[in-house]
Amino acid sequence: MALSSTSARHGVIPAIQTVIRMMQRPVGEIVPGKDLVASQEPTPTVVGNDQVLLQRLYLSLDPAMRGWMRDIPSYMPPVQVGAVMRGYTISQVVVAADGSQSGRFQVGDIVVDNSMVGGWDQYAVVPAKKCSKLPMLDNNIPMTAHLSVLGLTGMTAYFGLMKVGKPQPGETILVSAAAGATGSVVAQIAKNVVGCKVVGIAGGPQKCQWLLDQVGCDAVIDYKLANGDGRKFQKQLQQALKQVDSKGYDIFFDNVGGFILNETLRRLNLRGRVVLCGAISGYNVEDQRSTQVVPPTNYMALISLRAKIEGFIVTDYVREYKEAKRQMAEWIAQGKIKYKEDVREGLEQAPEHLKSLFNGGNTGKLIVKVGEPMTGTTMHRSKL
Amino acid sequence: MALSSTSARHGVIPAIQTVIRMMQRPVGEIVPGKDLVASQEPTPTVVGNDQVLLQRLYLSLDPAMRGWMRDIPSYMPPVQVGAVMRGYTISQVVVAADGSQSGRFQVGDIVVDNSMVGGWDQYAVVPAKKCSKLPMLDNNIPMTAHLSVLGLTGMTAYFGLMKVGKPQPGETILVSAAAGATGSVVAQIAKNVVGCKVVGIAGGPQKCQWLLDQVGCDAVIDYKLANGDGRKFQKQLQQALKQVDSKGYDIFFDNVGGFILNETLRRLNLRGRVVLCGAISGYNVEDQRSTQVVPPTNYMALISLRAKIEGFIVTDYVREYKEAKRQMAEWIAQGKIKYKEDVREGLEQAPEHLKSLFNGGNTGKLIVKVGEPMTGTTMHRSKL
Repeated sequence: MALSSTSARHGVIPAIQTVIRMMQRPVGEIVPGKDLVASQEPTPTVVGNDQVLLQRLYLSLDPAMRGWMRDIPSYMPPVQVGAVMRGYTISQVVVAADGSQSGRFQVGDIVVDNSMVGGWDQYAVVPAKKCSKLPMLDNNIPMTAHLSVLGLTGMTAYFGLMKVGKPQPGETILVSAAAGATGSVVAQIAKNVVGCKVVGIAGGPQKCQWLLDQVGCDAVIDYKLANGDGRKFQKQLQQALKQVDSKGYDIFFDNVGGFILNETLRRLNLRGRVVLCGAISGYNVEDQRSTQVVPPTNYMALISLRAKIEGFIVTDYVREYKEAKRQMAEWIAQGKIKYKEDVREGLEQAPEHLKSLFNGGNTGKLIVKVGEPMTGTTMHRSKL
Repeated sequence: MALSSTSARHGVIPAIQTVIRMMQRPVGEIVPGKDLVASQEPTPTVVGNDQVLLQRLYLSLDPAMRGWMRDIPSYMPPVQVGAVMRGYTISQVVVAADGSQSGRFQVGDIVVDNSMVGGWDQYAVVPAKKCSKLPMLDNNIPMTAHLSVLGLTGMTAYFGLMKVGKPQPGETILVSAAAGATGSVVAQIAKNVVGCKVVGIAGGPQKCQWLLDQVGCDAVIDYKLANGDGRKFQKQLQQALKQVDSKGYDIFFDNVGGFILNETLRRLNLRGRVVLCGAISGYNVEDQRSTQVVPPTNYMALISLRAKIEGFIVTDYVREYKEAKRQMAEWIAQGKIKYKEDVREGLEQAPEHLKSLFNGGNTGKLIVKVGEPMTGTTMHRSKL
C-alpha cells in the first residue's frame, strides 16, 4: 500500500532520506566517499502486504561487514555493487501494512531488523517476519544492548565460547581483540561464569589497563609492543602464562588471525582448541597469500598437540538465542558481565566509523545512532 | 645377567652386529652415511632383570621418523645425536632374563617391540614389559602385518578416520597420500565399511591406477599434473567432485599438508573436518616459513564453513588397539581391506629406503627385513 492509505501512521516522514550505498568493492582499506557513498534519495512510500516501513534508530557496525563487501560466496551472499550497504539495526515501525505478519506490529514498536535488506539508511521497507520486537529489558539496560551484549555480538561470544571452545573451570583461555565487543564478553564469561584463567590481548596501554581493571583479565598482552616480532610475542605469551601459572593455553578465542594466531599455536596445551571467530587482521587484504598476512605456518603443531582449529557462525544457533539472551541478561544483572558501547552520531559518518574497527580505533561495541525514536510511542515489548 | 648364564638360550648370536646411529641431525633431506651412519659394534651381552635380548626381524620405516630426528619436543622426545636410530620392529626373543616381566617370554617368541630403545640394529636389550607377543593371525596374514595394517600404520588409519573424522555413510572423503600405508587403509575403511564416496590423491599414473583398481577409490587426483599450480589443482578437485556427484568434501584425511591442504580448505563442505594425520610435504624443510612450504593461507574459509582442522596421535588410543586390531583382521578376512607392503632387504640400506618415503618412491607400507627368525622356534601367540 502507499503511505496515503488508511493504515496506522505516526509522526512525519521526510520525503528525502540519507542512504549509503556500496558503489564499488573496496580494495584494501575502505575508502569513504568512493566505496561507501552517501546520497539523498526519496524515502520509500510503497509498503506491500506483510511488510513494514521502518525508521532506523541504531546501526550496528561489525567486522563481518568487510567480508560482505567481498565478491566471494560465504555464509551470506555478498552485498551487490550499487546496493544500500547491509547492516543489523534497531528500528521503529512507522507503517505496518496489512497481513498476518505485519499484524503483529503496531506503529511505534521498536524492533531488531534481521532482514539484511539495507540497514545503512534512515527508512526502509522490509519483510515484517524478519523483524522481532525488542524484549523487555531491565531499566538499566539501554535498547542498544540488543546490538551489543544481547545482540549478535554477545551471542557470538556466548556460543563461540560455550559450544565451540567448551571451557572447563581452571582452564586457561587466551582472547585476541579482548577489548572488542565480542572479546570482552568472552573474557568475562570465561572468568566470571566458568572460572577460567583469562589472558587478554589488545593494542595499547589504555585498552590493556581496561582489560585488567574492568574486564577482569588475569594477565594482558599489548601486542603492539612486539611490533610483529615473533620472538618478542612468544616472550609475551610465556610471561602471561607465568603470571597465571599455566603451562599453555587450553583455548584461544581468536578474532584477529595472522601473526597472533600463528604464534599462539605453539603455546596451546594438549587438546587445545582454537575458536576461530574472526581474522580481522586479514580483512583488508585482497590476496591472503600476500606478505601483509602472516599465515599459520605453525599449524603442524596441531598434530603432536592433538589440538584443533574450528570455525563457527553464530546464526547456526538462532534457535538457542532466546535462552542465551535470558542467561546473559541474568549475568548482567548479577554484575558478572559488563559491557561497553561506543555509540557515535550520524549515518553519514558511518563509513569513517567502520574504518576504526580495522585500525584498533575503538573499544567496545561500535554503534551508530541514526535517528531518534518518535515521541509519545508506547513500546510493546515481550518478556526476555 | 651375562649370556654365559644358565638362562634359556637358542641359536648363535654373532659377536659383532650392524647398528645405524643418528650421528647428526639432518638439515633438509636425510643424507645416508652422514646423518644416519652404519657401524659394526659388539652385540650386547648383558641382559638385566626384566629385560630381554631381541634379534630384529623387521623394521618399520615411517614418516614420523623425520620428526623424531628434529631437536623439538613433541609427543615423543627427540632421538639424541649419537644414539641408535629409533624404530618399531618385529623381533624375536633370544634371551629372556629373570623377572616377572621377562618370565612372560620364552626364547623364540616373536614380539612387537614398542620400547623405542633403538630399532635400527640387529640385536638389542630392551625392557620386557614394552614387548608384546604377536597375536595369532589367520594363516594368510604374514607377521609383517603387525607393522602395517595391524600395526601403528593401520591403527592410525582406523582411529584418525573413525574417532577424529567421524565419517557418515554417503559423505565424501578426500585422502592425500592415498597410495601410502595409512592413506590406502583410510580409503578402504571409508569406502567398504562406512559407505563413503572416496577421492584419493597420489603422485603419478601408476599409483592412481592402483587406487582405482585395488583400493576402490571412486575418483583419483594425480597431484603431480597440477605441478604446484593452485588453479590447476582446484580444477582437479572440482572434476573429482563432479565424478562422485558431490558439492564438496566432508572429510579431508591429510597426510601431506602444504599446497594440497591449502587448496582443499576451499572445497570443504559445511562442517567439514580436516583430519591432520601428517604433513610429509614439510618434514624435510627446517624453517616452516620458507617458501618451500605452502602455508594454509585459506584457513579463514573454516569460519564461514564452520569447519575444523584437528590433529591426533594414534598412541592416545592404545587402550583400544586390541579391539581395533580384531576389527581390522575381520575386515581383512571379509575382503574389505587389502593392504600392500613394500618389504626391502638389509638394515644397511635402511637410510636410503627411508628417503623414498619423502620423494614418493614407494607404495604401501615400507618395511626393512633385518634378519631371519631362528629355525625350529615354536611361536607362542595369543588370540587376536
